[in-house]
Amino acid sequence: MALQNCVILLRVRYSETDQMGTFSNACALEWFECGRTEWLRQAGVCYAQAEQRGMFLPLVEAHLEFLGRARYDDQLEITTAAGMAGKARLRFDLQIVHAQGRSGVVRGYTVHAFADASGKAIRPPAWFLKALQNDRSGA
Amino acid sequence: MALQNCVILLRVRYSETDQMGTFSNACALEWFECGRTEWLRQAGVCYAQAEQRGMFLPLVEAHLEFLGRARYDDQLEITTAAGMAGKARLRFDLQIVHAQGRSGVVRGYTVHAFADASGKAIRPPAWFLKALQNDRSGA
Amino acid sequence: MALQNCVILLRVRYSETDQMGTFSNACALEWFECGRTEWLRQAGVCYAQAEQRGMFLPLVEAHLEFLGRARYDDQLEITTAAGMAGKARLRFDLQIVHAQGRSGVVRGYTVHAFADASGKAIRPPAWFLKALQNDRSGA
Amino acid sequence: MALQNCVILLRVRYSETDQMGTFSNACALEWFECGRTEWLRQAGVCYAQAEQRGMFLPLVEAHLEFLGRARYDDQLEITTAAGMAGKARLRFDLQIVHAQGRSGVVRGYTVHAFADASGKAIRPPAWFLKALQNDRSGA
Repeated sequence: MALQNCVILLRVRYSETDQMGTFSNACALEWFECGRTEWLRQAGVCYAQAEQRGMFLPLVEAHLEFLGRARYDDQLEITTAAGMAGKARLRFDLQIVHAQGRSGVVRGYTVHAFADASGKAIRPPAWFLKALQNDRSGA
Repeated sequence: MALQNCVILLRVRYSETDQMGTFSNACALEWFECGRTEWLRQAGVCYAQAEQRGMFLPLVEAHLEFLGRARYDDQLEITTAAGMAGKARLRFDLQIVHAQGRSGVVRGYTVHAFADASGKAIRPPAWFLKALQNDRSGA
Repeated sequence: MALQNCVILLRVRYSETDQMGTFSNACALEWFECGRTEWLRQAGVCYAQAEQRGMFLPLVEAHLEFLGRARYDDQLEITTAAGMAGKARLRFDLQIVHAQGRSGVVRGYTVHAFADASGKAIRPPAWFLKALQNDRSGA
Repeated sequence: MALQNCVILLRVRYSETDQMGTFSNACALEWFECGRTEWLRQAGVCYAQAEQRGMFLPLVEAHLEFLGRARYDDQLEITTAAGMAGKARLRFDLQIVHAQGRSGVVRGYTVHAFADASGKAIRPPAWFLKALQNDRSGA
């Protein structure tokens, strides 16, 4: 994929740790969500508004590899790439590393359908595909 | 309050622990939510259906005292009592103890408004007040 | 795998829903965790005690397919199977369906390393492999 | 209290919403935690290091007033103040408002004990009281 990557930083919250001293594994999916929101914003799509316009992106598949620990207050860098996977799916590729030292924390992808508010499948809207296109040319 | 208490059991999930080795404090509000759901069910009110009928109970105030630790897999007992607080507020009193040994974990209360789907204040519906009444007589 | 499956029930908590009206996708990993805890208990392994004995099972890989919505208060059934994947990995296969109607919600697997408290890889302890064996013969 | 306030910004995550369309109420306690971490950092105390030095600040009491809704992607401003409450308790006062428009979202306080790693009460360490003092003079 030749798409522009989006990079964000976040800190591990205390509530996100578990008794193993690292982050609770479910947090990875929440951080992926943060990465997607900012990738979309960078591509000119405010997802909050997209839902109001009737485009929902329910998650249909996720894959995660856990590469290393991250502790409370560690600063993490999330890099998100995205692109269409076939005609009806949007795929995000995500990588989380320690901002200091750049060792890996989580790597994975998520695949999303296009749906309306009731959950029914829709075609990807033209305005959305155009935004992806613009992003690609800017890379 | 002479209302019937509702008692439920739950186990601390691994994801609910934090690096202090006890439960993450935000979980207490989630467990209170579980207690309220079952209290309402016991009083004959399925809250999921209540929302569909247009009665929402947004939280307006919460108070929590943290009395002791609880570890992963510990079995906790949540006791919930409830009653109207004035004409427009519903109050729940909650107590969480270890199922084994009964030492205290969290104690507190939550206060709820009555609202419609848009968040606008409504009067407590008659059918809801009746359910509270029935519960009282059964105590 | 000829292992004994473990089946548990849980209800979707209000705090687990999101504004799409279904469960927040990160919850699936938390529910998987609940399934694993009970599978291990059924095999005679209390994971809380296992950690105290120095055996940790950090997650190294997870895969999830989201098959359908689940709403607040829906009762879900989680079926967990497990077995060794090679000599150094434990794999759980999980399936979450609606308790009523049995339509699919999430399906996936998680792969775990064996580690000590510091996160260093260890061999699977003999007592643990024996517990897996006993479970198999009981199936 | 004449202490220096600490102000941070955060965005409501998708996973933090619930089916009422606003944030799940337990998130308020997590956001308070973020505010405390940054308040301490501003006062020269890295809480992650404080725990390594043997000073833990377990939560003993929390009070929350929910003032208004906040939706997915809304930017929130958390203002945190802190000071000793008697000789053995640390109190934080927190306020969360919408960054745009400044309408209220949550207001509350948290009270913390001083403990060692095992949870046993300790006196507030001299180095910690000095950090609070320095912060005060800088206000």
